[in-house]
Amino acid sequence: MLENRRVLLLTDGHLGVFTSKTATCILRYRPQDVVAVLDRSHVGRDPADIVGVGRGIPIVGSVAEAMRYQPRSLLIGIAPAGGGLPDDWRQFIRAAIEHGLDIISGLHLMLADDPQLGPLARRHGVTIHDVRRPPDGIPLGANIARTLPCKRILTVGADCAIGKMLVAVELAEALIRRGRDARFIATGQTGIMISGYGIAIDRVISDFVPGAVELMLVENQHREALIIEGQGCLIEPAYSGVTLGLMHGSAPHGMIFCHQPSRKHLRHHPEVPILPLREFIELSERVMAPLFPSRVVGIALNCVDLSDAAARDAVARAEAETGLPATDVIRFGPDRLAEAVEAIL
Amino acid sequence: MLENRRVLLLTDGHLGVFTSKTATCILRYRPQDVVAVLDRSHVGRDPADIVGVGRGIPIVGSVAEAMRYQPRSLLIGIAPAGGGLPDDWRQFIRAAIEHGLDIISGLHLMLADDPQLGPLARRHGVTIHDVRRPPDGIPLGANIARTLPCKRILTVGADCAIGKMLVAVELAEALIRRGRDARFIATGQTGIMISGYGIAIDRVISDFVPGAVELMLVENQHREALIIEGQGCLIEPAYSGVTLGLMHGSAPHGMIFCHQPSRKHLRHHPEVPILPLREFIELSERVMAPLFPSRVVGIALNCVDLSDAAARDAVARAEAETGLPATDVIRFGPDRLAEAVEAIL
Repeated sequence: MLENRRVLLLTDGHLGVFTSKTATCILRYRPQDVVAVLDRSHVGRDPADIVGVGRGIPIVGSVAEAMRYQPRSLLIGIAPAGGGLPDDWRQFIRAAIEHGLDIISGLHLMLADDPQLGPLARRHGVTIHDVRRPPDGIPLGANIARTLPCKRILTVGADCAIGKMLVAVELAEALIRRGRDARFIATGQTGIMISGYGIAIDRVISDFVPGAVELMLVENQHREALIIEGQGCLIEPAYSGVTLGLMHGSAPHGMIFCHQPSRKHLRHHPEVPILPLREFIELSERVMAPLFPSRVVGIALNCVDLSDAAARDAVARAEAETGLPATDVIRFGPDRLAEAVEAIL
Repeated sequence: MLENRRVLLLTDGHLGVFTSKTATCILRYRPQDVVAVLDRSHVGRDPADIVGVGRGIPIVGSVAEAMRYQPRSLLIGIAPAGGGLPDDWRQFIRAAIEHGLDIISGLHLMLADDPQLGPLARRHGVTIHDVRRPPDGIPLGANIARTLPCKRILTVGADCAIGKMLVAVELAEALIRRGRDARFIATGQTGIMISGYGIAIDRVISDFVPGAVELMLVENQHREALIIEGQGCLIEPAYSGVTLGLMHGSAPHGMIFCHQPSRKHLRHHPEVPILPLREFIELSERVMAPLFPSRVVGIALNCVDLSDAAARDAVARAEAETGLPATDVIRFGPDRLAEAVEAIL
C-alpha cells in the first residue's frame, strides 16, 4: 500500500511512542517509504531521538516546506480514540491536497465523505484512501475458522496501545525467517497500511466483526500459520466487544499475551486496574473455551520505559509467574515466541 | 412508534414463535395496532393458534386482500440472521408502497437506501422507517454507566432468540405495576418498535457499542430502575462481541439469566453445546467483574415447548441448582423476578 507513495507523515504535536502509534509503526516498518514528518513541535529534530525509529528522516513544519522532499501522499499519523480529526489538522490536509498529494487516513471519520475535503480532492485530481472503510459484503460470523487447515495465532493484551500489532508483525517475520509459510493478518488501520492487506474490524458494524475476521482467514487458509493482530482488550470499557468478537472469529490455536510491566491501570481508564497476569491469561482462555480450546503460549512484554536490567527482570518474572516463554520482541527479539509457536505448528 | 399505524404484519411463510420473533412480539405487545398478518402459508387461520398471541387478527395472502382492513403501514415481521431480505419479499414491499402504505423495517439492510424501493417510496409519498439505523453522533464508551444514580438490570442469556427482550419488557411492566419508576430500554429493532425508544446496538459500528448503550442510560438516569434488553450471548460465534459490549456499557447491578430448558445447543450453531447453567452464570459474572460487580439475581426460563408440569419442574430445578429465584414470565408471571430486583433497588 505504501510502495512508491513517498509519504509525508502528519503527527503535528503528537509524535511519540504511544501518542502517534500509527506514525511510529510506519517509521519502524516502512521508513523507506517516508520522505518527511510534519510536526511543528519537533522541527529539525530526528524522529529516532523521539520514538526510537526513523533515523535521518527530516521533520518539517508545513506542507510547503515538505515539498522539497517530493512527497506524493500525506499519511495521517495518529489514531485518536474515537477516530476523529484534531481541529487544526484540516489545514494540513487541505494544503496537502492543494499541493497534489494523495491522502492516506486510518481515522473513523471518512475523509473522502467530508463535504469540504472530498470535493477538494476531486478538483485537484488526488485520491483519499480511507483505510478503515470496510469492504462491502461482509458475512455474519459462521464459526468456521476452527475448520480451516491453517494454524492461527492471535495477539491479545492487557490494554490498548500495548504492542499487539507490533508483536504480530515481528512474530510473523521471525517465523518466515525460520522457513515457515506465515502471514501477518492486519485487523487495524496501521497494520493494513504496513502490510497492504486487512480489514479494520473496529469500523465494521458490530454484528459482522467475526465474519470480517473469517473472511480474511478463509482467504489465507492455505498458509501454514496466520499471525492475527489483536485489538483492544477484554476489560476495556470501550473496546471489549471488538476484542471478544475477534477472538471468537479467529479461533486461535495459540494466543500471545501482550503487556507492559509498568502499566497498572488501563491507559484510557485509570479507574480500571489491570488484572494480575495469570488471572488475565486465565480469563482469555476461559472466554474462548466454549468455542475453541485456545491457549496462551507466550508473553510479549513492552519494556520501552525500562532499563535493560529492569526489562530482563520483568521477562524473568513473567516467565516464573506463568511458566510460559516471555520476551520483549524489540529489545530481545521474537525468537522465544517463534519457538513457542513452532511447537504447535 | 406503532400508535395509529394500523400495521399489516408481513411474515410470509415464517409465522412461528422462533421464526418470526419480531412479528410474535408485536402481536404480543401491540395487538391493538395490528390490522392483519400477511402470510400465504397460514391464510384464514388465527395467529393465536400458531404463536399463542394475536387472537382474532386476520391472516391474509396479499397486500391487495389486506386493504379491506385499512392498513397504514407494512411492518417486516422477521429479523433473519444477517438481516437480509428474503428474495420474494420485495414484491410485498413494492405492493405495499404502491398501495400507499409506509414501511417499518428492522432489517440490517436499509430499505430506504435501496435503489428501487427508496425512489418508489418517494414517488408514492410514503415513508420507509429503518428502525435499525443508528442515530448520528454516538460517542465512544466512557465507562460512565457505573456513575449514574439509576439501578440497572440487564437480561443476558444462553443463546439468541431465547426471551431476553420479552423478559425485560415483562419485568419492567411488573415493576411499574408495583409502583416503581422503571423503564424498559430497547437495544434491538423489535424492542424499539414496541416501546418507541432505543438504539439497535448490533447495527452500530463495533467501536461504539458501549457508547450507544451509555447514551440511552444517561438520558434515563433519573429513573429508579432501567431494565435493559440483552442481545446475543457470550458464547455465540457471531454475536458474542455485541453481548460483551452491551454488558460492559450497561454496568448492570443485576442480571437476569434467560434460558430455554430444552435447548442444549446454540440455535444457529448446533456444534456449540450450551454451558451448564451455573457455569454460564459464573462466566457472565466473571467477564463483568473487572469493571463492575454485577450479579445474576434471577433466572427466566422459556418453557414454551414444555407441559405445565415439566415447566414447574424446570423452574424448581433451576432454583435448586443456582439458589436463585426462577420463573417462566409468560406462564407463571414475572413477580419472582420483580421481587429479586426490588431487593437491590
